Amino acid sequence: MNGSHITERVAALRRLMAARGWAAVVVPTGDPHGNEYPLDRWKLREWLTGFTGSAGTAVVTAADAALWTDSRYWLAAEEALRGTPFSLMREGAAGVPTPAEWLHGLHISGEVAVPYELIAHADFLDLEKQFAPYLALSPLPEADVDALWPDRPALPDAPFEVQPDELAGRTAAAKLERLRAVGWTHPLSQAPCLLCNGADIAWLLNLRGGDIPYNPVVTAWLLVDDQGGTLFADARKLTPAVAARLDALGIDVRHYEAWREVFAKRQGRSAVLNIDDATTCQAVFAAAKEHNAIQVVSHFGIDRWRAVKNEAEAEGFRRAMLRDGAALVRFRRRLDEAMAGGGLTETGVDRLLTAERAKEEGFRGLSFATIAAYGPHGAIVHYEATADTDAELLPRGFLLLDSGAQYADGTTDVTRTIPLGPLTQEERRVYTLVLKGHIALSRCRFPEGTTGLQLDLAARYAMWQEGYDFGHGTGHGVGSHLCVHEGPHQIRKDVRPCTLLPLEAGMTVTDEPGVYLAGRFGVRIENTLLVRRDERHEGFLCFEPLTLCPFDLDPVDLDLLDAPERAWLNAYHDRVREALGPRLDDEADRRWLLHATRHV
Amino acid sequence: MNGSHITERVAALRRLMAARGWAAVVVPTGDPHGNEYPLDRWKLREWLTGFTGSAGTAVVTAADAALWTDSRYWLAAEEALRGTPFSLMREGAAGVPTPAEWLHGLHISGEVAVPYELIAHADFLDLEKQFAPYLALSPLPEADVDALWPDRPALPDAPFEVQPDELAGRTAAAKLERLRAVGWTHPLSQAPCLLCNGADIAWLLNLRGGDIPYNPVVTAWLLVDDQGGTLFADARKLTPAVAARLDALGIDVRHYEAWREVFAKRQGRSAVLNIDDATTCQAVFAAAKEHNAIQVVSHFGIDRWRAVKNEAEAEGFRRAMLRDGAALVRFRRRLDEAMAGGGLTETGVDRLLTAERAKEEGFRGLSFATIAAYGPHGAIVHYEATADTDAELLPRGFLLLDSGAQYADGTTDVTRTIPLGPLTQEERRVYTLVLKGHIALSRCRFPEGTTGLQLDLAARYAMWQEGYDFGHGTGHGVGSHLCVHEGPHQIRKDVRPCTLLPLEAGMTVTDEPGVYLAGRFGVRIENTLLVRRDERHEGFLCFEPLTLCPFDLDPVDLDLLDAPERAWLNAYHDRVREALGPRLDDEADRRWLLHATRHV
Repeated sequence: MNGSHITERVAALRRLMAARGWAAVVVPTGDPHGNEYPLDRWKLREWLTGFTGSAGTAVVTAADAALWTDSRYWLAAEEALRGTPFSLMREGAAGVPTPAEWLHGLHISGEVAVPYELIAHADFLDLEKQFAPYLALSPLPEADVDALWPDRPALPDAPFEVQPDELAGRTAAAKLERLRAVGWTHPLSQAPCLLCNGADIAWLLNLRGGDIPYNPVVTAWLLVDDQGGTLFADARKLTPAVAARLDALGIDVRHYEAWREVFAKRQGRSAVLNIDDATTCQAVFAAAKEHNAIQVVSHFGIDRWRAVKNEAEAEGFRRAMLRDGAALVRFRRRLDEAMAGGGLTETGVDRLLTAERAKEEGFRGLSFATIAAYGPHGAIVHYEATADTDAELLPRGFLLLDSGAQYADGTTDVTRTIPLGPLTQEERRVYTLVLKGHIALSRCRFPEGTTGLQLDLAARYAMWQEGYDFGHGTGHGVGSHLCVHEGPHQIRKDVRPCTLLPLEAGMTVTDEPGVYLAGRFGVRIENTLLVRRDERHEGFLCFEPLTLCPFDLDPVDLDLLDAPERAWLNAYHDRVREALGPRLDDEADRRWLLHATRHV
Repeated sequence: MNGSHITERVAALRRLMAARGWAAVVVPTGDPHGNEYPLDRWKLREWLTGFTGSAGTAVVTAADAALWTDSRYWLAAEEALRGTPFSLMREGAAGVPTPAEWLHGLHISGEVAVPYELIAHADFLDLEKQFAPYLALSPLPEADVDALWPDRPALPDAPFEVQPDELAGRTAAAKLERLRAVGWTHPLSQAPCLLCNGADIAWLLNLRGGDIPYNPVVTAWLLVDDQGGTLFADARKLTPAVAARLDALGIDVRHYEAWREVFAKRQGRSAVLNIDDATTCQAVFAAAKEHNAIQVVSHFGIDRWRAVKNEAEAEGFRRAMLRDGAALVRFRRRLDEAMAGGGLTETGVDRLLTAERAKEEGFRGLSFATIAAYGPHGAIVHYEATADTDAELLPRGFLLLDSGAQYADGTTDVTRTIPLGPLTQEERRVYTLVLKGHIALSRCRFPEGTTGLQLDLAARYAMWQEGYDFGHGTGHGVGSHLCVHEGPHQIRKDVRPCTLLPLEAGMTVTDEPGVYLAGRFGVRIENTLLVRRDERHEGFLCFEPLTLCPFDLDPVDLDLLDAPERAWLNAYHDRVREALGPRLDDEADRRWLLHATRHV
């Protein structure tokens, strides 16, 4: 992207602003369906600024333009914005104004346009509060975005796929009844529910999509009423199997853009709609207001239903982990061979591992971009190797490898920190402290009602004793052939709604403490766990590690492990060996596994 | 108290209600100064109902009367209310209405009188919200309380005492300047600050009081203005030293009741007052409103200033702990002798221990009512032995002993669970799990910014592994010759403002996990800790145990302790032995200490 393109785009936007009478335009990063990775069609901020990072807000006035982004992206944004009309606003740095403060400082007042499709309702309310009393927000219509952005990507046409009921463990019909029971409990009952979230709709209808890398969510809107409903989606996505499924559910299909007509065609008492407060974009609220529909804002809580896996989903995870674990073992043997040959790079590691996973039944792609980070790259928490950074692996230090796959019956997420040769005493100590934290969380038993905020200490206690800490979360939910980052619960040290939510039996959660020493190395160790009832203690819960993959033992300073930690490690390795051994055809792979899972 | 007295009192209240036109009266439990133990003068709810528990709300209408209290007191309240007009409302039980719901169910509407002196402003706002829209709250004036309650106790006349600057570590003048810096930063600046809280005023002026058992707070109101201020207090409390101190600070003294005139006499711009939102009773807000004074409601945050001990206060704690520890050792030897003799009861334990403490320099009484709980009594968390319950100690099982004292230079709070003879395997296991929790919290190092909610797991992890838990908080602040329960921080497992507040270097906090098996036994182990900078790790904090008292080793199942726990225990016992040994004159006491602090 060169600066003159961006200058032209900003000029075009300013002509639009002049025509519409807008004092400024705010372009956030997002999409109407709450996706972690927005479709290209919704990447207006990226198109306008040339900056490709996953977070940021662009603000343009008649004379000024600026982009806000957080510290992860300051360097990249500085680079990307050079030669464009945009100044970089280092969000979170001392003295940096918010967009509202900045506009106020420029003496801007009047109407500020925002593409309402790109902002969740709750975030819009925050923005509105910040902008009052000088600035009023108004929609930047889709038609204006189309006119402004001539080569705007169309919606993709990847077909939907049916998630079999035997893998989902509950029929779509049963899930729809559960939603109706919530939607219909409101005083203004019998009101249909409008759903916008791509993961909610996928889970509810037992469908999966293929529009977005890594996350098999669907691109659609869904109106559920008392008999059936309407799916607003591109007709090209409907295979015969999907069409039959929807027909059986009494759900008719209309085109994607027709969702707005939901409001127009409803009259009188039926012009009442249940809208989920947590997952609905501002465009829906604006459309409802425009058509005088009564919005009943509820918290549907589908994210919690989705988070609590049923027994069929748990079994699916266990099967997927067997295949993922076998692929990981085969990969490790290939890694050893490639290291002996020399010349292997980080992206080569990704290719080797993905090739092994792709051999497994039900493989549907990766669940996120592999983090294969050698040496100092391991200290960059969200590192993704590119052609520019792709480091060659040398026979010393650590390779931090965080990866996962989508299978029809489950989603995997696993991190191992692999020693490639001699380690320093510090590398061994840090590795052992992280492993202690991982084990302490994994073997924790806790009363029902315990939250992720309460459990977080388990993962940090050992490293805190030595003055180490980490800034990211300790654990997140994992979808059942859905998003690898799934709410509503998390384990982390800061107070957020997600950390104040009690863990429940059936929830998946990762256990991924780490330590990162900038410019030197990083260690992270991660399994995906399943929350279960503790069979020994009434009213208590515990974790079952779903991930089946040996922890590297060579870096462990055994003097730092206590007896319960060793016993846990040996028992886990017994389980891994017994589960994966029979799935390995190659004698050398089995020998590798046997050695990797030896007792300590 | 017999029921006919109570019936007469309720009748008198109903005559007053009829005369004033009140539809109902609500009498909460509290006082104007935020004391844990209200003065007798403010125990209107106790006088009206005959129920002496520390929590409860009485509501009286023309025809009905009820008392709400929580589960701790259901049995006692049932007993106390028998033969009175009051029904017991089991607060927190399923289906029990709130006072507002109850009144609404009785079709009561109109004015409801509340003694505004007995309710904090924040609680009043809650009450008001619950009672709207049918019921309006109005004050039940002090004069009416006096008329209703002919033998109402007067304010006590215990003299104030100067807390020497060398113990307080900061002069009252410096503390007043700090408050002025807060009060004066508001846009409506130059506004005087009105303080109501007995601990705030005691800390700010380096004064202590003697009106209330255990808590040396002062009974007064304090107005701080830009030059000096006014203390509203009983003149009989002013010793020459106190009078001189106040005079030097530019603080004049007026009688206790004259605080209301603060509002009347201020005109125009000076009719602006800073009021602390967290510690001010509703009577102050009502008086301000009545006199058209402008209230600037601020959060002064004196509780946080008081919580962070300076070096002189920390040194005072350390000296007080030396004396308290020596008294505890002498007591333990006397306890052994008394047990050999037989016939010792729980109240006898209290007398033995208090006698030893009273021999120590600077002893000013206990810091709370001693909990000496033998056997099954140990499972009652707030047990206090009475003549009726006073159990004889037998040579088996546990004595749970939670006690503390006030010294001029510090306040102590310590719990030991003492084996009196043979123990069961379960008693030993539970004791060891509680000790492991105590040690894990005490030896934890943690980054600045860490809250009590985050740390709580340390005290519970080991017992959770075995299916045990406890319902009370894990730790509270301790005052410097002030209240033994001191805010604003706590360590506990539930989300409250106190558990979301980061611990800071200089704060004291108790470490008191426990396990309680109803009808069988209880174990609690408690030290008071000081939060300190971790000298080994920049940006980290750690704990210094202030309490100096051996942990009983006989009940410890050594197989359950790991190497760091043993090392911590031995190092703590080394410190205790070295600190207390030189303070013991009796060779037998020294021998006891030597044995009690042996290495494991």
